[in-house]
Order: sequence, then C-alpha cells, then structure tokens
Amino acid sequence: MKSRVINLAGFDEPFALNDRGLAYGDGVFETILVHAGEPVWWHEHWQRLSSGADRLNIPVPDESHVRRLCKELLLDENRCVLKIILTRGSGGRAYAAPENPDPRIILSVHPAPVPMHDRVQIRWCETPLARQPLLAGIKHLNRLEQVLARNEWHDQTIFEGLMCDTEENVVCATSANVFAKIDGQWLTPKLDQAGIAGVARAWVLKQWPQVEEARLSRLRFAAAEAVFVCNAVRGILAVNRLGDRAFPVDSEIEALQCRLASEQPAFASGENRGA
Amino acid sequence: MKSRVINLAGFDEPFALNDRGLAYGDGVFETILVHAGEPVWWHEHWQRLSSGADRLNIPVPDESHVRRLCKELLLDENRCVLKIILTRGSGGRAYAAPENPDPRIILSVHPAPVPMHDRVQIRWCETPLARQPLLAGIKHLNRLEQVLARNEWHDQTIFEGLMCDTEENVVCATSANVFAKIDGQWLTPKLDQAGIAGVARAWVLKQWPQVEEARLSRLRFAAAEAVFVCNAVRGILAVNRLGDRAFPVDSEIEALQCRLASEQPAFASGENRGA
Repeated sequence: MKSRVINLAGFDEPFALNDRGLAYGDGVFETILVHAGEPVWWHEHWQRLSSGADRLNIPVPDESHVRRLCKELLLDENRCVLKIILTRGSGGRAYAAPENPDPRIILSVHPAPVPMHDRVQIRWCETPLARQPLLAGIKHLNRLEQVLARNEWHDQTIFEGLMCDTEENVVCATSANVFAKIDGQWLTPKLDQAGIAGVARAWVLKQWPQVEEARLSRLRFAAAEAVFVCNAVRGILAVNRLGDRAFPVDSEIEALQCRLASEQPAFASGENRGA
Repeated sequence: MKSRVINLAGFDEPFALNDRGLAYGDGVFETILVHAGEPVWWHEHWQRLSSGADRLNIPVPDESHVRRLCKELLLDENRCVLKIILTRGSGGRAYAAPENPDPRIILSVHPAPVPMHDRVQIRWCETPLARQPLLAGIKHLNRLEQVLARNEWHDQTIFEGLMCDTEENVVCATSANVFAKIDGQWLTPKLDQAGIAGVARAWVLKQWPQVEEARLSRLRFAAAEAVFVCNAVRGILAVNRLGDRAFPVDSEIEALQCRLASEQPAFASGENRGA
C-alpha cells in the first residue's frame, strides 16, 4: 500500500502508536475515487473533511499542500482510491485533547473496487445506528456500527445493507446514501441524527432540488416504487431488489446516471459499472 | 513511549497504516494501573478485553503470551499505566472484515496519573451519549463522545464530567463510572444502552451486592446525598461538589476506599490520592 504520513506543517513524520485516531477514532477521513490520475470531486471531499474537522475542533492542514502531496502519491496511478485520514495527532491527557494539537494526515492509495452490474441487490441490516446529533453527517473515524452492519451478510450477490436508527428511521446504507421515490416524490433521509452526508448525495441534491430530506420510517420506505444508492466511489447504483421486494427499471434514475457520467467520466458505465 | 506491536500468533510486527483500529476504531482496549511492577486487576481487565472482542467477533490472543510480553515491557517499571489495544488488524474490503482476521495487539507504557486530593469536584457535560445496545458496556475504540465531553472544560480543579444519554439518563463520567446514594440506597446506572462497564465498578458491585443497577434520570440524580466515581487507574474518588451542589463526607465511601486500599495496595492513599 502506497502511503505517506505528514504533520500539520506538511512535513513527513512517522505514524505514532499514541495517535488519537487509533486510540479513540479522534479524526475524520475521506475515500476519493481517482480517475485518469485525478481525484474526482476533490473540492467537495476537502470541504467535507474540513467541516468534519471543524466540528471536532481539529485544525485543518493547508489544502494546496495536501493536494500536492496526493499528486505525488498518485504518480503512475490511473484508476484507484485515495484515502485521506486526518487525526488530532498525539498528545493530551487521555480523552483531554492537547492544547495545541499537531494533527496527523495519513494518505494512502488503494485499488479501485471491482465493477458492478448496473442494478444492485440490497438488504436490510439489523444493526441500528445510534442517534447522536453532535456526530451526525460527518465522516469521523468511529465506524464500528458500519463494521457490525456490513458483517451481517457474506452473500456476495448482495451489494449493500440499509441501516435504520434506533427509532426505525431509515438512514443510509453501510457505505452509501439512499434515495427512494414514494408516490412520485423523491426522498432521502435527513442526516441530523445519524449517517454520513455523502459527496455523491450532495451532487444528487444539487441536480434534483425537488428531493425532500425527510424523516423516513422503515414502514414508509416499504412503499417505495424506486430506490437507488450512491457514494463517491461507485456513483449512482439503481436497486433492483431489496429483500424480497423487486423494483422495475426507473427512467429517472437512468437519466441521473447519464448526467453524472457526462459530468464525471469516472462514472461512465464502461469505467465503473460492469465494464 | 515504550511500546510493542504483535500479531495474533504473538510475533512482533510493525503497525500497518491500514489497520482497522485506525480506520474504523475496530477494536477494544484496556488501561491498566501498574503498581510495584505488577498490573493491578490483570485478570479482570483481560476478561473485559476478551468479552468486548467476542462481542465484535475479533479473535483473542493467548492470555499467557500477552501477559509475558507485558512483563518484559514493564521491566524496570514501578508505577505506570499499561495500555493494551486489540484491533481486528488489517484487511477486509472496507467495512467488511477479513474472513480470517489477524488481529494486532499494541502494548504501551504511560506515566501513572498525578495524585489527586481525596475528594473531587465534578460537573455536568452537555455532550450526550448515544444509545447503542450493541456496543454498550464494552471498551471499544469508538470514543469520540468521550473526547467531545472531556473537552467541554479546561478548569483543572474539575476532575470529571458526568454524561447523560440522549434521553437524559445519567450513564457515567467521561472516564469513570459513577455511584450515587439516594434515600439511603446506593445506585449505579445500568449500562445496557451506553457507557463502559468498568473493572473498578465491578469490584464495587461485588463488595456491595445491595447496589441497584438502575435507569437513573438526571432529575433523580439531583437528589443524591453522596456520590463517588471510580475507575481502574484512580480507584474510588468521593465527590465533594457537583456543579453547585456540595456533598458532606460520607463514611460508607470512606470504608469502601479503605477496603479497596487493603485489598489492592496500589490504591492506598499514599500511592494514589494526594501523596
């Protein structure tokens, strides 16, 4: 795995075993698709990393410097996934953060995921998401709930699992956001109590201002006539089956996928979906 | 910081930047007081580590081997804190765990905390604890809530902060459990929705079988006539003030501290509390 560890000033430094990212999950991360050697949606990913770090009161390194280091790391890469972890660094006394934190940035390069068929099968997860407004929406490093949920199934034909919060509201898939059409109206769960506000989700909301962000009970979700999941590495994937519910092809989803592929060639079907 | 990283088979190996402990907080940990060169409550800590790992489905290394490695690391140490982190190791595809995980164990030695006065001042935290029965009780690596809560105050005269869950039930302090006497009855919060079931807490419950584990609203807690906090590094600390509430000296707490000190000299007041 190609990787590089730097401090806030941008200098290389070894990873330290007392890093608060390891000790407490005290940090945030981004998983960025790289296509033709370039990070896709860099700006949006950086914005989310920054706003997550702000929420946790972790200083954010200089964007252009990190971008330059990523470029160096991505030399000779065509299609892959770039991961950026930003932790509060070492120091402090137990949970108490250091007065002047020196955050640590861990950059690493991973293989792009294997291509998927266009339409995917998903399931319900039993692992609930706890409701924690202070951490909802951001992509922090406390992800045990997603680990538990993703390990509920081993059937490789199932692409994703939908998660509800502890009050039976649909929130997201284990590593994707979800949209559902109910009575002709597109909806996506509000993420003020749990879940991660994805970069692909934000792109969809910008394209389709008519989507309603809603508290969406599992019961209400059952009435969906079309469903798709999305994330920044896979793009938009229409759902053809959720448990024993089957969904017909939906032309609105197809049109949206098309628009995404034309705006971001990284998501053209030859690249990402079944090529 | 003295440290050592080993794999499940007990061999030394370097820490890897794709460790799932760092990526997702996918692991558990213990913080163990060392006194006269010996880990205090080793057995109890190991039991909790194991049961937490079981809950997360992480294989547990051989106890006697890890114990031996800890002994080597603690050579020349008298009083300190030993930290054991057990992660699911590297591998898997994103949240999906590897089929045959090779967990990583990170041992490290830290200074013992500075001695405290006998009775401590505590406060209320605003950061709520999310309710997540699947993770409640165990000492996993997802500790952002505790980090947020502990960083609500910087006044060094305040020793701890009490945390409630999102439904206003008292759960614990940021790094200690809490007991309260209400109408002559000792109570401690149930930890089936949030919080960590501490080793010192378990010791108290064994000494005092009359303690009731209860759902304890913040409102009800306000009627407490005596309060103490406890953890495995500090032992038992009587609370003399909670916000603007003052508590008189309580002879039952004193007797319990005495019993602890005689059973575990590590917690004798000359060692731990104001020496």
